[in-house]
Amino acid sequence: MTRLDRSEIERWFQSFQARFTEALQDIEEQAELIVDLWERPDGGGGETRILSGPGAIEKAAVNFSAVHGPTPPRLSESLAAKSTEFAATGVSIIVHPANPFAPAFHANVRFFETDAGHAWFAGGADLTPNYLFEEDARHFHGHLRAVCDRHDVADYHSWKAACDSYFYLEHRHERRGVGGVFFDHLQDELAGVWAFQQDFAESLRDAYVPILEERKDTPFAPNHRRWQLIRRGRYAEFNLVWDRGTRFGLETGGRTESILASLPPAVVWEYGAEPDPDSPEARLLAEVSGPPRSWVS
Amino acid sequence: MTRLDRSEIERWFQSFQARFTEALQDIEEQAELIVDLWERPDGGGGETRILSGPGAIEKAAVNFSAVHGPTPPRLSESLAAKSTEFAATGVSIIVHPANPFAPAFHANVRFFETDAGHAWFAGGADLTPNYLFEEDARHFHGHLRAVCDRHDVADYHSWKAACDSYFYLEHRHERRGVGGVFFDHLQDELAGVWAFQQDFAESLRDAYVPILEERKDTPFAPNHRRWQLIRRGRYAEFNLVWDRGTRFGLETGGRTESILASLPPAVVWEYGAEPDPDSPEARLLAEVSGPPRSWVS
Repeated sequence: MTRLDRSEIERWFQSFQARFTEALQDIEEQAELIVDLWERPDGGGGETRILSGPGAIEKAAVNFSAVHGPTPPRLSESLAAKSTEFAATGVSIIVHPANPFAPAFHANVRFFETDAGHAWFAGGADLTPNYLFEEDARHFHGHLRAVCDRHDVADYHSWKAACDSYFYLEHRHERRGVGGVFFDHLQDELAGVWAFQQDFAESLRDAYVPILEERKDTPFAPNHRRWQLIRRGRYAEFNLVWDRGTRFGLETGGRTESILASLPPAVVWEYGAEPDPDSPEARLLAEVSGPPRSWVS
Repeated sequence: MTRLDRSEIERWFQSFQARFTEALQDIEEQAELIVDLWERPDGGGGETRILSGPGAIEKAAVNFSAVHGPTPPRLSESLAAKSTEFAATGVSIIVHPANPFAPAFHANVRFFETDAGHAWFAGGADLTPNYLFEEDARHFHGHLRAVCDRHDVADYHSWKAACDSYFYLEHRHERRGVGGVFFDHLQDELAGVWAFQQDFAESLRDAYVPILEERKDTPFAPNHRRWQLIRRGRYAEFNLVWDRGTRFGLETGGRTESILASLPPAVVWEYGAEPDPDSPEARLLAEVSGPPRSWVS
């Protein structure tokens, strides 16, 4: 196939970062926005955007990066063909809503290229509720399913299964939430994958923002907030203990503040916090501890 | 040398757990105490004690365990002589004070034995202030130095250096705090090491509790609490990303709630939180980012 133009991909990712930031600002008009441009000593750089507001969004990060340079040994090990130079570009998004009934959202889209002639796309999106609203899970998965169905290169069902298996806290025997899709090493039919990647990224707004809109003003009590903070502890545990991207970044000298921008703004760890049987909290736990469900036919 | 009696060590560790819990209850009289007896499916068990109070101690854990069974593959890999059965017993202590000016405290004492005739002690103690009081660091290190000086098998200076190097957050280029001592694989002169281990454990109370007593009622403002919660984020990052004991436990199916009892009760992650130059917060950062200091001659 024709070789993709990486700088075109980078420009598109950067414009997507701007659009997604605006989508969040639409729902959080008085948000404080931190924009941090940074350079990577070994090559490239990025733009970290942190949004936090008095309203719907306690903290969100919409981060763009386009880095290049000598292939880190840890990356080289995982590749079939040895390379000496690599480039990676992508956007990662995380939203930690203020309201305990609104789910956290994570997504990323990424492109990699090495001087060994190897190029691939990766990405995914997943939803992490503190309280289970089945209609939210159906809405989210419905949008992911729809964008996958529009592209021959996409496979919702196997990517949904990969997401369930990736976002798993082995030490808790819990999945992180109600999943989504996860794909990696998409290296065939790159032009088709790139078309999918753009469509996928653009569909994230409709997949998530209406859910946040629906839940952001739900009345809640201190016990709901406490449960949200406890569940955010699981989120921090997943990112710091299991997430391959986070660990790879921290262990290879990535930009710590950008990598850890995914961590929740406030977290509680409480010993042996067990919800009452039959409570909404117990229902969420049963959902993330049981076998993954189908959310769309 | 004579073979040590593991059940005697276990009994002593359990009595030490009780004494240290009481020392904390002396300073936090109205503390709520959770006592959780647990069994390990593959052999042995433990007693997790969680203390939290309205006063000095926001959360403390004083955990005893005595486990045995088939040697986990991950442990076996790290040993010179292959073994099929192992036993491990120990007490681990963590104190997260309520007052931002009072430092967090961690210590553990451990004994291991395999059926390949291999036995060793390990342990350590370290202090993690949010604000640097040099006299606290000197008091703490002074006690550790004194107990080491009483025993030929102990070496304060190399164990102090090992502690500085172990409690290091590579991704932050920060040490966790002002250090202490860290020792592992003490396998020669076991009777002498056991005598040291008991003296070391008993000295922890005087090494730490007077500091907590001194700082617990210091007046503080919301900005001090915020800094405490940010520094606790580093503590969580260290334990979840770098601490070998925590990761070993989580990856080999240890008892999650006991292992993660070390995590702070409440944590904040704030993007790019940089203290003002010349502030007490900046002084702490300079201390943990600069070369380790000598606290006792």
